[in-house]
This record gives sequence, structure tokens and C-alpha cells, in this order.
Amino acid sequence: MTASTGGPDGSAEQAADQAADQDVPLALQDAAYREAVVDLLGAIAYGELSAFERLVEDGKLAPSLEDKVEIAAMAAAEFGKVAGIHARISELGTDPFVAMAPFREAIDRFHAHTAPSDWYEGLIKAYVGDGLADDFYREIAAYLDATTRDLVVSSLEDSGHAAFVVDRVRTAIAADPRLGGRLALWGRRLMGEALTQAQRVAAERDALSALLAGGVDRPGLDLAAIGRMFARLTERHAERMAELGLAH
Amino acid sequence: MTASTGGPDGSAEQAADQAADQDVPLALQDAAYREAVVDLLGAIAYGELSAFERLVEDGKLAPSLEDKVEIAAMAAAEFGKVAGIHARISELGTDPFVAMAPFREAIDRFHAHTAPSDWYEGLIKAYVGDGLADDFYREIAAYLDATTRDLVVSSLEDSGHAAFVVDRVRTAIAADPRLGGRLALWGRRLMGEALTQAQRVAAERDALSALLAGGVDRPGLDLAAIGRMFARLTERHAERMAELGLAH
Repeated sequence: MTASTGGPDGSAEQAADQAADQDVPLALQDAAYREAVVDLLGAIAYGELSAFERLVEDGKLAPSLEDKVEIAAMAAAEFGKVAGIHARISELGTDPFVAMAPFREAIDRFHAHTAPSDWYEGLIKAYVGDGLADDFYREIAAYLDATTRDLVVSSLEDSGHAAFVVDRVRTAIAADPRLGGRLALWGRRLMGEALTQAQRVAAERDALSALLAGGVDRPGLDLAAIGRMFARLTERHAERMAELGLAH
Repeated sequence: MTASTGGPDGSAEQAADQAADQDVPLALQDAAYREAVVDLLGAIAYGELSAFERLVEDGKLAPSLEDKVEIAAMAAAEFGKVAGIHARISELGTDPFVAMAPFREAIDRFHAHTAPSDWYEGLIKAYVGDGLADDFYREIAAYLDATTRDLVVSSLEDSGHAAFVVDRVRTAIAADPRLGGRLALWGRRLMGEALTQAQRVAAERDALSALLAGGVDRPGLDLAAIGRMFARLTERHAERMAELGLAH
């Protein structure tokens, strides 16, 4: 919300700030936009909260205390994002718990359908789920007012946990190549379940879908653009799996 | 570790700092003291880590998302203390995971024997367990070098969660007085189990016991003083139970 002062290397950022600053009043004036942003933040907040819970649960499968602490740190980082998102929802005039409620069923169902059966499935779920959520936030950030965008983007900061997961998974596959085949299938299942639940949410939450589709008097994505966005998300998922040593 | 500069209102603090500063070299020179402190910090670190895990687990029993978030915040606060304690153990020349290992069995057994059967038992366990641990840290802080003492005392900062537990438990008992009887017994069981496991640890960890008993060339507690310390811990436990509306 600070004025863009510009700088030698800040021209692109400056342009983005100017575009976003013009949108800020909409967050308070446009009821449909506000509803959509509250939906988005409610979904993110419940997503972080349940990721926190599931990561701690999956930490029970850790083969060592070191691994358990690594997963616990990932979990605590997810929970650490919740308070800021709740504060923004409150600023927008909605009780954060009311905002989260519509997304409980889909997110709980995602987790129920993707309960890891061992430590490596848990690691991949943490890595792939986190990466997919981050990609999605990055995609939609452009359609948000500056304050909300900064909040969403700030939750993307990589805290270095990815390297831990990549190391553990690659080492395990090197020791047991058959594990790679099973985990590749697991990664595909995670992506399929995420898309299934995302479509269910999109079908039920008109304001949120309209935000993405540009239907609330704002620039947005037409259906073809949404299709391309999903293609990009799927492509980045495949890159992440490849980084883990899990070619499709 | 900074020099005591003194100040208009810092005389008591200054005296404490001076006393502690004299002890600092012992942390590096006295192998028995170092061993005892590593034991103590290992026990605290594993205690925080397992409290974190159990609180998140108990959060599943929460009757509402609001309650779940409160418990998750208590859990995350426990985990937040682990990194600093690990860093101090490393400074003292021990792998933090090696330092935690001897305490896993007793602490895991404590949790296995005190798995809450409902939300209120979980709340009381969180409140009583946290309070008991804090009282114990406060008791032993006086026998530690300044750096370790500051670290232990800094983990005592009340983050305002106690008020949440007291409110929830008192409200529930007002609505169902029979709950009070059951929870009073539960509180007694928690204390009994904590003492049982503490005695087991004391019997097995000579250096740690010697630190408390003053046997490693430092001021400490004789057996009578240890008895009085346990009496104080039990008394404060009773006060906490009374604050919850659970008279013995």
C-alpha cells in the first residue's frame, strides 16, 4: 500500500503496483469482488490449517526424529500463515471461520482420499501439495488488489524445505528403484484428486469462479485462459515430479 | 552473555547476572555440568516436540474450527521453542537428536498413559502439562549458567492461551457439573503420571539428578530441598486445577 517510488530496476514491479493500486478501492466497494476474495482467502486459510494438521499426522511415519522435526517445521510454517490471512478476512468484514467453512468439505475430502500409506507418500504429498498451491496462488495473484496480492504472494516464500524432500525421495528411489514406480502413480493420483476437488469448489462458489473468469467487472480469464492455466499447473506438477526423480 | 551495565532499576537483575556470569565458563569447562545441561535441554526439546504433536492430535477433538485453531496456536508455540534449544545443545557440542534420545521413552510413555478421551481432557492436559513444565523450568533456572537460564526462562513467556482454556473448561463445567468430577480425577492422574515418569528419568540420568542435587561442584538442592520443590510443584498444580473450577 506504500506509494511506488520506482528505482533503477523496479520498472516492471512499479507498473504492477500502479495497476494494482487502482484496484484497491474495489476491495471495499465491489461486493462481488469482496465476496470472491473472502472465498479465496477462506479456502487458503483452511487449506493451510488442514495442511498443518496432516503434516503433523504424517510426521508420525517419519523414520527418524530428524525427519520428524523437518516435517514439523514445514507444518508450523503452514500454520504461521493462517493468522495473517484471518486478519485480512476480518478487515474485509467477514468472520474468518465463516469464510473457511464452505471449503472444509472439499479440502477434508482431498485429504481423506490421499492419506499417505508410508513416509515417502507423505513427503511427496507435502512437496507436491505445497508446490501446486503455490503455483495456483501465483497464477491468481495478478487478479487481486495490491494488499491481498501481497498477502498471498508473501505466503509463497520458500523456506528451504523442498530441498529436504527432494534429497530424501531421490535417496530412497536410488536404494529401491521399484519405489519410484509406486510414487510416480501416487503423484498422479494427488494431482487428479486436487483437480477433482478444485472443480467441485469452482462449481459451488460462483463469486470465486467469476473472479477467475473476469465476470465481476474486472479483468479475468476466459474459459480458454482457464484451460491454459490448468495446463501450466499440470506442467509444473510434472516438472516437480521429475525433480524428485519420478518421471511420468 | 553481555556485560551487566546496571541501571536505575536493575540492581536485583544485575546481581543475578553477576552471579550467573561467574558460572558461564563452567558450561564449557565442567564436563559433568555440560552433560547435565545437555540432558536438561534434550528433555525440554523432546518434551516440546511431543507436546506439539499431541496438541495437534488432540485438536482433532475440538468442537469447532475456532477451538482447533486455538489449540493449533498452542502447538505451534511449543514447536517454536525447539529450534533455540537445539541451537544451544549444538553450541555445547552435542547433536540435539542424540541429546533428545534418552527422554523419548519416558515422555512417550507419559503421553501414551494420558491420551485424552475427549476435548476437555485434552484442554486440561495442555493447560496442566504446560503449567507444570513451566513451574519446573522456573525452579531449576536458578541453577543454570546465564545463557542457558535465559533460554529456559524465555520459553516461559505466556502467550495468552491459558485464558482460553480456563474459559472453555469453566463454561463446560457450569453447563454439566458432573464433568467437573471427572476432570478433577483426570488432573490428578496427569500429575501422578508426570511424577512417575520424572522419577524414572531422575533414576536413569545421573548427571541431571546431580545438577538438581548440587552434586557437580555447584550449588544445588539437597534431598529435603528437592522434596520441598516437588511440594511446591504439586501445590501450584492444585492452584491451576482450582482456577479451572476443579477443586481436589
